[in-house]
Amino acid sequence: MEVGGCAAAAERPKPSEEHNGNAEPAVPHEKKMNGISAVIPGWFSELSPMWPGEAHSLKVEKILFQGKSDYQNVLVFQVLVIGGGDGGVLREVSRYSSVEQIDICEIDKMVVDVSKQFFPHLAVGYEDPRVTLHIGDGVAFLKDVPEGTYDAVIVDSSDPIGPAQELFEKPFFQSVAKALRPGGVVCTQAESIWLHMHIIEGIVSTCCQIFKGSVNYAWTTVPTYPSGVIGFMLCSTEGPAVDFQHPVYQIDEDEASNKSKGPLKFYNSQIHSAAFCLPSFAKRVIDSKTS
Amino acid sequence: MEVGGCAAAAERPKPSEEHNGNAEPAVPHEKKMNGISAVIPGWFSELSPMWPGEAHSLKVEKILFQGKSDYQNVLVFQVLVIGGGDGGVLREVSRYSSVEQIDICEIDKMVVDVSKQFFPHLAVGYEDPRVTLHIGDGVAFLKDVPEGTYDAVIVDSSDPIGPAQELFEKPFFQSVAKALRPGGVVCTQAESIWLHMHIIEGIVSTCCQIFKGSVNYAWTTVPTYPSGVIGFMLCSTEGPAVDFQHPVYQIDEDEASNKSKGPLKFYNSQIHSAAFCLPSFAKRVIDSKTS
Repeated sequence: MEVGGCAAAAERPKPSEEHNGNAEPAVPHEKKMNGISAVIPGWFSELSPMWPGEAHSLKVEKILFQGKSDYQNVLVFQVLVIGGGDGGVLREVSRYSSVEQIDICEIDKMVVDVSKQFFPHLAVGYEDPRVTLHIGDGVAFLKDVPEGTYDAVIVDSSDPIGPAQELFEKPFFQSVAKALRPGGVVCTQAESIWLHMHIIEGIVSTCCQIFKGSVNYAWTTVPTYPSGVIGFMLCSTEGPAVDFQHPVYQIDEDEASNKSKGPLKFYNSQIHSAAFCLPSFAKRVIDSKTS
Repeated sequence: MEVGGCAAAAERPKPSEEHNGNAEPAVPHEKKMNGISAVIPGWFSELSPMWPGEAHSLKVEKILFQGKSDYQNVLVFQVLVIGGGDGGVLREVSRYSSVEQIDICEIDKMVVDVSKQFFPHLAVGYEDPRVTLHIGDGVAFLKDVPEGTYDAVIVDSSDPIGPAQELFEKPFFQSVAKALRPGGVVCTQAESIWLHMHIIEGIVSTCCQIFKGSVNYAWTTVPTYPSGVIGFMLCSTEGPAVDFQHPVYQIDEDEASNKSKGPLKFYNSQIHSAAFCLPSFAKRVIDSKTS
């Protein structure tokens, strides 16, 4: 099995934009720390036009790293907040002995370097001998990949506002489908059902056009994300059928994985299947596109 | 079927305490609007020792109502944020034609009045002829209820810090169990698995001592709550067995309820069963108490 991952081909701000997007210029007392909106002094607040009128804030004990790469502002503080190219997905993929080769394409080398320095427990994923790191644009990388190269592609992207928008559009999904073998699978970040049903509706429509196997939406809880949830599109190309909700592989029974990497803290078979159960308002929209 | 609801016997601040608890006195620029922490002027921020170092903020368009009852500060602004005695639970319970009588015990009349004035779509629950409203302390109310009065008790309480603590303790659960018929069920608010596993562990232990039918933990997502999730204890008394995860009644097939009250926006049979699937870290703790 081969896995191709495009992590965080993300957040390339225009000169006038900043990490958190000048979302709420009307807020008084707002200060900028190198492009990070610090609404509350001593606190990090996430403001965005993606969730207007709402903010989630974390108290910052100490700023450990602050830098500006070609693509984004990178800020590390003594609070666990992680981004795309941090190696976390790699770490989890490398649990499985059935995986033979893992390519990761990350546009921003600074994210990799900062993760290795400050989050070694995440970046440990890079140490697996099956991993090859490609620094570059995931969109371009996938275009050059020979047809049918991968069994699975994981897209760990940021939000579809601004430059990451490409990763939510038809040409990109076409490249993904081409890079997958028949019956190959893709998992992409697909926003919050509480905040972005209109975006999700568009993604589902596009995926239905491109992926002729199955098209599914699943979701889970992430307490540090706006609205507390995040969703995923799980699709397969035409070929051997894939039942995403009821996988053949049972993680709970994989003693080798649990022994070598330690038991999983969150994920298990029940949580996996439950993630496909949708609230009625979301189910109605998604079913109308997929059926 | 009879349902007894104790809504929001909650938040009775000591003279020196306020609604959001003076949680973070170190935060500069903090202002108080009648006891509400306004960290960002023009925004409502929720700070609490229950989630230290974290804040969720909503931009306030306009303050519609501001008052101090005997029990808490009541603030209504042009943002949908609802509390306990608002009638929302009543509205949902009254969907079901099998329910014959509904008692609600709410300590704070101001919550009822404010809800009727500003949230008529929630307070509509009070209009059901099966509803009897009791203004008073839920703890005292339950003590006086004859044994085996209710088929179901729903406790829609606030957090177990300060005065609402009683609603999470053994004597209260004993009153609930006594008020229920054999095989009767209780649903109580049971905090966030992300923030309060130690509190949940205690609640589960207590419930296992009191409720000799079944003891279950379920959870769901609420984007405006800290960490984005909230949990419930679902327990039954000794008597006819109750399988909470797989109820006999199928909401999706109840055409009468869907017609009279409109289709449900969130809840459905799949979401119901999925709510009992727990992340491994929570499952380990809860299973160790219940099995």
